[in-house]
Amino acid sequence: MNQIAPRRSGGRAARRAVRSAPVSDAMRAIRPGMEGGRYTPLTPAEVERIHQTALDALEQIGLADAPPSGVAYLTAAGAIEGEDGRIRFPRALIEDTIARANRSVTLMGRDPRHDMQLSGTRVHYGTAGAAVNLVDVDGRNYRDCTVQDLHDAARICDVLDNIHFVQRPMVCRDIADNMEMDLNTLYACCAGTTKHVGVSFTERAFARKGMEMLHLIAGGEAAWRERPFVSNSNCFVVPPMKFATESCEVMEECILGGMPILLLSAGMAGATAPSTIAGAIVQATAECLAGLVYVNAVKPGHPAIFGTWPFGLDLRTGAMTGGSGEQALLTAGCAQMHRFYDLPGGAAAGITDAKLPDMQAGWEQMCSNVMAGLSGLNMVYEAAGMHASLLGFCLESLILGDDLIGHAQRCVRGIEVDDETLALEQIRQVCMGGPGHYLGTAQTLARMESDYQYPKTANRMSPKQWVEMDKPDLNAAATARKEAILSQRSAARFAPDVDAAIRAAFRIHLPV
Amino acid sequence: MNQIAPRRSGGRAARRAVRSAPVSDAMRAIRPGMEGGRYTPLTPAEVERIHQTALDALEQIGLADAPPSGVAYLTAAGAIEGEDGRIRFPRALIEDTIARANRSVTLMGRDPRHDMQLSGTRVHYGTAGAAVNLVDVDGRNYRDCTVQDLHDAARICDVLDNIHFVQRPMVCRDIADNMEMDLNTLYACCAGTTKHVGVSFTERAFARKGMEMLHLIAGGEAAWRERPFVSNSNCFVVPPMKFATESCEVMEECILGGMPILLLSAGMAGATAPSTIAGAIVQATAECLAGLVYVNAVKPGHPAIFGTWPFGLDLRTGAMTGGSGEQALLTAGCAQMHRFYDLPGGAAAGITDAKLPDMQAGWEQMCSNVMAGLSGLNMVYEAAGMHASLLGFCLESLILGDDLIGHAQRCVRGIEVDDETLALEQIRQVCMGGPGHYLGTAQTLARMESDYQYPKTANRMSPKQWVEMDKPDLNAAATARKEAILSQRSAARFAPDVDAAIRAAFRIHLPV
Repeated sequence: MNQIAPRRSGGRAARRAVRSAPVSDAMRAIRPGMEGGRYTPLTPAEVERIHQTALDALEQIGLADAPPSGVAYLTAAGAIEGEDGRIRFPRALIEDTIARANRSVTLMGRDPRHDMQLSGTRVHYGTAGAAVNLVDVDGRNYRDCTVQDLHDAARICDVLDNIHFVQRPMVCRDIADNMEMDLNTLYACCAGTTKHVGVSFTERAFARKGMEMLHLIAGGEAAWRERPFVSNSNCFVVPPMKFATESCEVMEECILGGMPILLLSAGMAGATAPSTIAGAIVQATAECLAGLVYVNAVKPGHPAIFGTWPFGLDLRTGAMTGGSGEQALLTAGCAQMHRFYDLPGGAAAGITDAKLPDMQAGWEQMCSNVMAGLSGLNMVYEAAGMHASLLGFCLESLILGDDLIGHAQRCVRGIEVDDETLALEQIRQVCMGGPGHYLGTAQTLARMESDYQYPKTANRMSPKQWVEMDKPDLNAAATARKEAILSQRSAARFAPDVDAAIRAAFRIHLPV
Repeated sequence: MNQIAPRRSGGRAARRAVRSAPVSDAMRAIRPGMEGGRYTPLTPAEVERIHQTALDALEQIGLADAPPSGVAYLTAAGAIEGEDGRIRFPRALIEDTIARANRSVTLMGRDPRHDMQLSGTRVHYGTAGAAVNLVDVDGRNYRDCTVQDLHDAARICDVLDNIHFVQRPMVCRDIADNMEMDLNTLYACCAGTTKHVGVSFTERAFARKGMEMLHLIAGGEAAWRERPFVSNSNCFVVPPMKFATESCEVMEECILGGMPILLLSAGMAGATAPSTIAGAIVQATAECLAGLVYVNAVKPGHPAIFGTWPFGLDLRTGAMTGGSGEQALLTAGCAQMHRFYDLPGGAAAGITDAKLPDMQAGWEQMCSNVMAGLSGLNMVYEAAGMHASLLGFCLESLILGDDLIGHAQRCVRGIEVDDETLALEQIRQVCMGGPGHYLGTAQTLARMESDYQYPKTANRMSPKQWVEMDKPDLNAAATARKEAILSQRSAARFAPDVDAAIRAAFRIHLPV
């Protein structure tokens, strides 16, 4: 609440009284899992054509480079290994898989109040990525990011209402050994938040070690399998149309270990995917359908997220760009394919090419985030903090992103139309013998919290107030909030005995 | 073009060759008047309920305070003056008016290449408003804006591709006399741009004087009436449900003078309109329908824009806020009502509550702008430059807004789906015996300019390049572009004899 504007005294006392009452979760204007879907970039006929073309690609072109274990799973399910080593997928196999796949996945948090129900057009926003730099706003610097930065990011996410899950957004550049990096990534995320966590593993053996840590955190394997609070972000393909051999092995391990899978196809339109938006969606869809067959061949009905993540390029330079209008369309188009299949789906939005949290960062992050939400994307990954076309992660931007996503969520919630909201009687009473304004009406007061979403860090002061308050700077306000959050003891930290057990079994880089 | 990234040399020479060719207007990825409409915040049943409730409000509540001339026009058309002085509108009158109204309006520029065809879901973005401050980015100051600032804004808009019209965004605080202010506003805008201009007049007599100036600019009254390049932004109502007496008189004068009318209803949800989004849309729709009857009663078929502009409030403080999710929904919902009526429509988007062009400004401006475009709003007013909930106008932000709107327009253009864009054959060639990537394919090269939209000021450099270039600041880049534009002689200035004639007839404050 950053503004006390001078205005008529009419309903002020009454508004103050309402304001002083705490807002229950049910009364908040926004919440995780609100239903989007009012934006449909593709017509039904266009969706059908993309689907049919993806089936053609799977049947005629197929995917290369499956690991031997994958070839065994896939051919047993009905896929065909060609003379050229490519695995091709008959249409019936794809259609049967779609029909039988798990279409209502719960991604759980270590704390059950953070559980996310992925189905229909329910929308959730969170972090993701593999940034190699931390963006230091105050010094305008990019530096290698560390396991401490990752842990700090998780801790900040833990207290931000509009960040619904924490997929690892940064790689720990201060840990050279790949296995140690994977395991410390898992530790740093889980020790920072009780929201759902997403991580990757480089090799099958590392995933196996990760499961051991998760059993310790959960209090045993059974408890982990009952409520798996970590999913595997799995780049199972190297676009175009090749399986990523080692990632596929990791995927098998995770499935067997009871971990939900994000089937992540990250083609780059114009480089590793066609340059057209429709073509990039076709290829990503085909690849994820192949992945869906794979997952269901290993374990029928295993929870999987249809992760069509095509990215944009700047075709003039061949460099990645995630902050474009083309990117927003790629993601929204993919969301519509997920709805067509009625499968839990995710894609990337909220990326900016800006190096700092400046105006460009704001418009680029909002455009794809709000379009993703309006299109009903279940999981909006990379939604906050991601700068420089995914190379940098910024904690101040993450905090501002909480406001930005709240704003987008309010749009996802949409417009309620009923007798009360249409307000004919209210208009009549106000205009005909009434006060001639709506400031103090019961209807206005009642909707102050339930209908309106208020930013926490963004500034709504009048210019006069802003001058009186010494012209507060937005990024400085975010830095202050970051420091306040990180100065608190995290509520997500492990119990001392659990932590000791983990540290006894693994080389944990974060200090106790 | 701010980036030369290191990458494989594959198709680089070829891309350079394509890049060196100039891009024709037809080949640009975006253009004015692209069709939106893939986003529909309201269901058809909800739209119908809003319509019926607006008809109820007009029939049962009606509008007060019409001027005597308006009462005469409206009652002659079939409206009913009540004992209480309110004018009520039978449903049949409204429905007949909608059926007979002008549904394809051309808003002309002084240069015909800037003509805008308002119909269907064709989208145009431009400025508007009545800011009282100019935002000085470098000094972080708000100061009274002047006629020179207004002229500078028009000149900048004239060269920005994605600002399609120039409705007066600032009031000239340095001109005390109301008539002189109105006439100098008209001069400052028209002398700065050959795009379509929008202005207001305080009194009927000032509008008449404005027409005299426009006849001089056009080369006579007949030439003006043939191609009216200025529209009247007319706040014909004082919500809730009262005609603005003097503005209605101005409107009559403008209609008779051949000037298109923007029927502007600017209620504030929670103050002068219901606090619910649906209710605010109902009231704005009712008010604009009353205005439509009025315009058509004065002159059947006169070009009018259905200007439902409900604004949001921060209900905690009662202060205006234009940068909220609620605001984006208000505007998108109104756009859907325009489509329902198949009438040319406009509303406000792109407003931010931020005081400076910071990250908040970016996300707030983008959210409502892209949703307005996707909902197919014909005229997106206040789309660029508008800060502090409409109190401040910022020239740097206007320049950055050109990129922001270009980005939104790319989203409005949407996803093309045809055999070529679906790219099955390309995928086959690339994957089966081909290069394994799409970097140098003919299809990729061909779409570099026609499909991809590139920002002019926003920064896509890699962190490495950004450091090498001394970490360019976004706002400083905008300031540099502003200074470059304003250092050039404006192509929109009047011929010397025309200018002399205007200056002989009117007291023009801008220097020759």
